[in-house]
Amino acid sequence: MSQVANGQTGLLPPPKGLVAPINVPQKLLMGPGPTNVSPRVQQASGLQLIGHMHAETFQIMDEIKAGMQYAFQTKNQWTLVISGPGHLGMEAVLVNLLEPGDKVLIGVNGLWGKRAVDLANRLGASPLALEQEAGKSLSLDEIEQGLSKHKPKVLFLVHSESSTGVMQPLVGVGDLCRKYDCLLVVDTVASLGGVPFFMDDWKIDAVYTGSQKVIGAPPGLAPISFGPRAVEAIKSRKSPVKSYLLNMNELTIQWQCGDPSIPRIYHHTPPVNLFYALREALAELTEEGLENVWKRHAEASARLHAGIRSLGLKLFVQNESDRLPTVTTILVPEGIDWKKVIQYLMEKHKIEIAGGLGPTVGKVFRIGVLGCNATPEKVDRVLQALKEGLEFAKLQGHL
Amino acid sequence: MSQVANGQTGLLPPPKGLVAPINVPQKLLMGPGPTNVSPRVQQASGLQLIGHMHAETFQIMDEIKAGMQYAFQTKNQWTLVISGPGHLGMEAVLVNLLEPGDKVLIGVNGLWGKRAVDLANRLGASPLALEQEAGKSLSLDEIEQGLSKHKPKVLFLVHSESSTGVMQPLVGVGDLCRKYDCLLVVDTVASLGGVPFFMDDWKIDAVYTGSQKVIGAPPGLAPISFGPRAVEAIKSRKSPVKSYLLNMNELTIQWQCGDPSIPRIYHHTPPVNLFYALREALAELTEEGLENVWKRHAEASARLHAGIRSLGLKLFVQNESDRLPTVTTILVPEGIDWKKVIQYLMEKHKIEIAGGLGPTVGKVFRIGVLGCNATPEKVDRVLQALKEGLEFAKLQGHL
Repeated sequence: MSQVANGQTGLLPPPKGLVAPINVPQKLLMGPGPTNVSPRVQQASGLQLIGHMHAETFQIMDEIKAGMQYAFQTKNQWTLVISGPGHLGMEAVLVNLLEPGDKVLIGVNGLWGKRAVDLANRLGASPLALEQEAGKSLSLDEIEQGLSKHKPKVLFLVHSESSTGVMQPLVGVGDLCRKYDCLLVVDTVASLGGVPFFMDDWKIDAVYTGSQKVIGAPPGLAPISFGPRAVEAIKSRKSPVKSYLLNMNELTIQWQCGDPSIPRIYHHTPPVNLFYALREALAELTEEGLENVWKRHAEASARLHAGIRSLGLKLFVQNESDRLPTVTTILVPEGIDWKKVIQYLMEKHKIEIAGGLGPTVGKVFRIGVLGCNATPEKVDRVLQALKEGLEFAKLQGHL
Repeated sequence: MSQVANGQTGLLPPPKGLVAPINVPQKLLMGPGPTNVSPRVQQASGLQLIGHMHAETFQIMDEIKAGMQYAFQTKNQWTLVISGPGHLGMEAVLVNLLEPGDKVLIGVNGLWGKRAVDLANRLGASPLALEQEAGKSLSLDEIEQGLSKHKPKVLFLVHSESSTGVMQPLVGVGDLCRKYDCLLVVDTVASLGGVPFFMDDWKIDAVYTGSQKVIGAPPGLAPISFGPRAVEAIKSRKSPVKSYLLNMNELTIQWQCGDPSIPRIYHHTPPVNLFYALREALAELTEEGLENVWKRHAEASARLHAGIRSLGLKLFVQNESDRLPTVTTILVPEGIDWKKVIQYLMEKHKIEIAGGLGPTVGKVFRIGVLGCNATPEKVDRVLQALKEGLEFAKLQGHL
């Protein structure tokens, strides 16, 4: 092989760290995600690979599509999965719906809205922030004022602002968007499956979520759905979509989202074994029933909130109806070093809870009850560990 | 929950297809990828999740980084993994290195070069195609003429054009790029690990590959590396990178590619269990030793080529030194329905081989010897099955 003979004096050496076997300890993940996966999902993740264009993979993709139509409560044909993390779901909706100069009004009351503004800027669109205090949702009046003032092409709202623990009410927003001839895009990464959500009834034009939260699959996939008005906007674009991987006009062919007589065409090689896992997670969701899953999350959340109060702690989100059931934000008590508490839970109990993010850094703990961890037993475990962690940190503070 | 009471007349029903368990048959994957994964990699894919910001995950990421530095033969600090398929590797290099209007010269002798042209157009850059017949590589002279004529900011070459089975020689190209003050970017998706490759010695400024080929992990990750000249170009950009997920200035902080005293900052939630699998695949690569892996692929390829000849078939790539050892293209004999052959192998033997792609559709079979499938036994199995498949298709043609 002639290419080897290039004055080589020898190879760079092999790395030493790879000699030992991999180290993956068992942990209880009660942060805002990823969550633990069920035994069935875990087993599916480890199945041997098949090809991305095999009939069995197409069947799995069809089953995922049907499962996501159920989870989003939509009949949209353009319901599919982006081959990448939840963030790529955000990129997919914005890169397909926005063209240079397009106005997009973005609800900003935490990290995710801020990130959508950043991304819209990167894409050459004109983002306008509809700002709200961290810890509060936007009212219908505030949204209508924004729509009426700015006349945006797209309104982007974060249903589940996991950085603050706020849930944005969505009933009525779809009607406002129709009134102002605007597309409604919603981020449901941290909420979908854990709280009632009706894409079609709520007149939402595009939505995405992440595989690793309530759905309970590993991270790395972003389920997404586009309604007819969004499809129309994408099909009538004047400029090309600024991505190949995320270009819905082509990706939807591999997913066969249109006429089933049109054959699938290879677009890219998706993460096949993550599809296995997502398919099984959706099978479990279907077996339990969406309403039961919502109920289980509501009950776990109520139990967590009661336990938090009985520990003498306060929730960050004042207005009860603004509270996201899946991710709870708890004020760090005065005099307590939040890092010590989190470390204690991880070291002594192998339980993950998170600190704040974006506007809540240093101010809150964030506890997630997501997927198979939304049970009374897991809630009680995290409450007991939190109690010990707070006592430990208090003691440390007094030393 | 007030949001439920929205005039709901009932939920959309659960999908029926998800009632049965998942169907993933065992197959031998001898197409151009994904390939089968080893038992160790398969087991790692199915380990329970831990968090993306846990110390153990950081250790796994560091080990992947070291493993990829070894596989790429580079000391580049900016060696990391994109959370998405190989295609996202292509997007990552181009979206970071190109600004609107930048000239990029792209070697086009198959599908992948063409796709890079398409993507560069989408990003608002000015791609120039350096065209070559499908089945041939570009010579140093042809490359120098292109550089001298167009003075591009970036030269993009496909090391492994898996749509045609051509390997692009790279020795000397780096020197030409320095001479013309141009960055050299190379796609090694279908070759890395299967053939000698020396990023630093060959003066390559940016490179990416896919996890699901020779490396032998599942699809869904794109290892990538940027050399100092590329890093400088990214750091001195005038316009923002048109993506959040792929913005190297931020992603490299989560991967701690710079000063190790600077703490990692959360950028996005990567596919943690795919990291497990890639880490173990790289551990196996390290144990076997890169030179032995190259040798094993060269031998498997030679055995395949000899077998192909003894079946009376012809290789698509005329020039022996242009042949990619990892993906072999074989001319479909006259009078044979290639689809029937491929179907026969899948139905009777559960073996995948592929048809042509892009310029080779209908003209060739493509057989991959990748990762743990690059062994004499697997080569003999595919040859025997191919022999039968050809006989079957011949018989069908005569009926």
